[in-house]
Amino acid sequence: MKNSFFSRFTPKEPKFFPLLKQLSEILLASSVVLVESLEHDLPEERADYYRRIKDMEREGDKLAHLILDELGTTFITPFDREDIHALASSIDDVIDGINSCAKRITIYNPHSVSGSGKELSRMIQQEAEYIVRAMDELETFRKTPGALRGYCLKMHDIENRADDIYEFFITKLFEEEKDCIELIKAKEIVHELEKTTDAAEHVGKILRSLIVKYA
Amino acid sequence: MKNSFFSRFTPKEPKFFPLLKQLSEILLASSVVLVESLEHDLPEERADYYRRIKDMEREGDKLAHLILDELGTTFITPFDREDIHALASSIDDVIDGINSCAKRITIYNPHSVSGSGKELSRMIQQEAEYIVRAMDELETFRKTPGALRGYCLKMHDIENRADDIYEFFITKLFEEEKDCIELIKAKEIVHELEKTTDAAEHVGKILRSLIVKYA
Amino acid sequence: MKNSFFSRFTPKEPKFFPLLKQLSEILLASSVVLVESLEHDLPEERADYYRRIKDMEREGDKLAHLILDELGTTFITPFDREDIHALASSIDDVIDGINSCAKRITIYNPHSVSGSGKELSRMIQQEAEYIVRAMDELETFRKTPGALRGYCLKMHDIENRADDIYEFFITKLFEEEKDCIELIKAKEIVHELEKTTDAAEHVGKILRSLIVKYA
Repeated sequence: MKNSFFSRFTPKEPKFFPLLKQLSEILLASSVVLVESLEHDLPEERADYYRRIKDMEREGDKLAHLILDELGTTFITPFDREDIHALASSIDDVIDGINSCAKRITIYNPHSVSGSGKELSRMIQQEAEYIVRAMDELETFRKTPGALRGYCLKMHDIENRADDIYEFFITKLFEEEKDCIELIKAKEIVHELEKTTDAAEHVGKILRSLIVKYA
Repeated sequence: MKNSFFSRFTPKEPKFFPLLKQLSEILLASSVVLVESLEHDLPEERADYYRRIKDMEREGDKLAHLILDELGTTFITPFDREDIHALASSIDDVIDGINSCAKRITIYNPHSVSGSGKELSRMIQQEAEYIVRAMDELETFRKTPGALRGYCLKMHDIENRADDIYEFFITKLFEEEKDCIELIKAKEIVHELEKTTDAAEHVGKILRSLIVKYA
Repeated sequence: MKNSFFSRFTPKEPKFFPLLKQLSEILLASSVVLVESLEHDLPEERADYYRRIKDMEREGDKLAHLILDELGTTFITPFDREDIHALASSIDDVIDGINSCAKRITIYNPHSVSGSGKELSRMIQQEAEYIVRAMDELETFRKTPGALRGYCLKMHDIENRADDIYEFFITKLFEEEKDCIELIKAKEIVHELEKTTDAAEHVGKILRSLIVKYA
């Protein structure tokens, strides 16, 4: 479809910012479903929540690919190509992380998810909220980087608290859980949740590097 | 060795396509040995298969490095440098994945590998076959992308089925296996196999992005 | 802060080599603390060593970010930007690996760390020593690459031995350890140590690619 001489060389200006905003909204929506899913412990409920999250993950994947494909064929972009690429990929990684959390919960099927696990899921949602708001700053942060910088700091704080919650939980788990199979389930589910808070903070790191580079 | 002014600036045209084809053939050969190895459950047989796969992995590593080194010193390439780089690295990653599968089976030494594990290994082999055939399309897909596009779709389908097999297997495993150590062995071996089908599909994703970019 | 026309376009020459040297010294220091920590098995001692390693990890992170930020705003660098980036990131990854090892030991709290684990920690320290010495070669290896090439070979040898130690240990562990929870602890701690020797060898791979490219 991009074969004609004309379409290849005419500068195009796809709406990268709205597309990134849309991607961040898929992230937020899937984080909300994840938080909700942890209140339901029946296998069929879990499978159902996982299905919904998986659908969103596929939608996110398509959108991220659309952004990357557009980047590969676009000559004018608001930022360096690689920065938009990094941003889209990193948001997509958080959505993938949420999908992996839901998948593990469904296929490991623990009695229930721990309080720490639920707390981590709420932190993922908070980070997703900051990422959505950060997307609204992309057009303006070069002149007024304050708000974007603030969101990055918040995400960094959340990640630090998530680390503490994770470490405290695993320490207790190895002290107290004597059922090896339940220990495996709890350990790996909480580990995936913690990795996902980390993936969200990685979006924050990329945003911070944009501030350094462009603001 | 590449010090002379002349050798540095004379355009060279190393045979990237034949080298990539050769790399894909190492991948296919190691996938065939992996499939065969899963029919043998004696520790010394497993160690022997692992040794053969490890040799192929080293051969693949050397070839991938040769490709990357050539890229670093070559001025004329058929594609953007980074695309050849991504392709060679991603094929090498699949070979590494096969090596990790064989390693885990050897050092964990489970009674036997499950039917699901065997099915996943055959899927890796199928994906390797499509990757070999895809390498034959690299010279011509810009004009006739149909065949390459077809192989990518096939790999995508295989990966989706591999996901289902993996999830079904792990769900059953946690429901039924009461021996914790056998559960760990089965879970991690099948996980590595599933990750390797994923790595193979990642080659397909890179090929799809080449179609978008060049065809 | 980098807004003025002048500051943006005046070539700057930040001291990348001294910064990389400094980063490698943080790596070496944290590997020394890791080796020492494995001789201490009380939870509070472990927590204390982990705290020290975490502080170094944060210091390394800041320094790596400083290097990357400088790269993003500097027009004259001794190498291609991406090579310095890869080098700084890969050294930072080893520091992160050491931090992960100390974290796992602290939160899993095994009775003691195996002899194989201790041996792997000493190998990480040896690799860190070669990395520090490699940083001293960056200014001169284009003319005299012999020393740098030698360090890379040593790191490659260490990694091969580390693989053997890891595989032998895990094979024995699955044969002999009947306590599932202790097996999990030992397996994952030694796995993280092995991954960290691997991360160190990855620095060696990047250095080898620099030799191919520039020497």
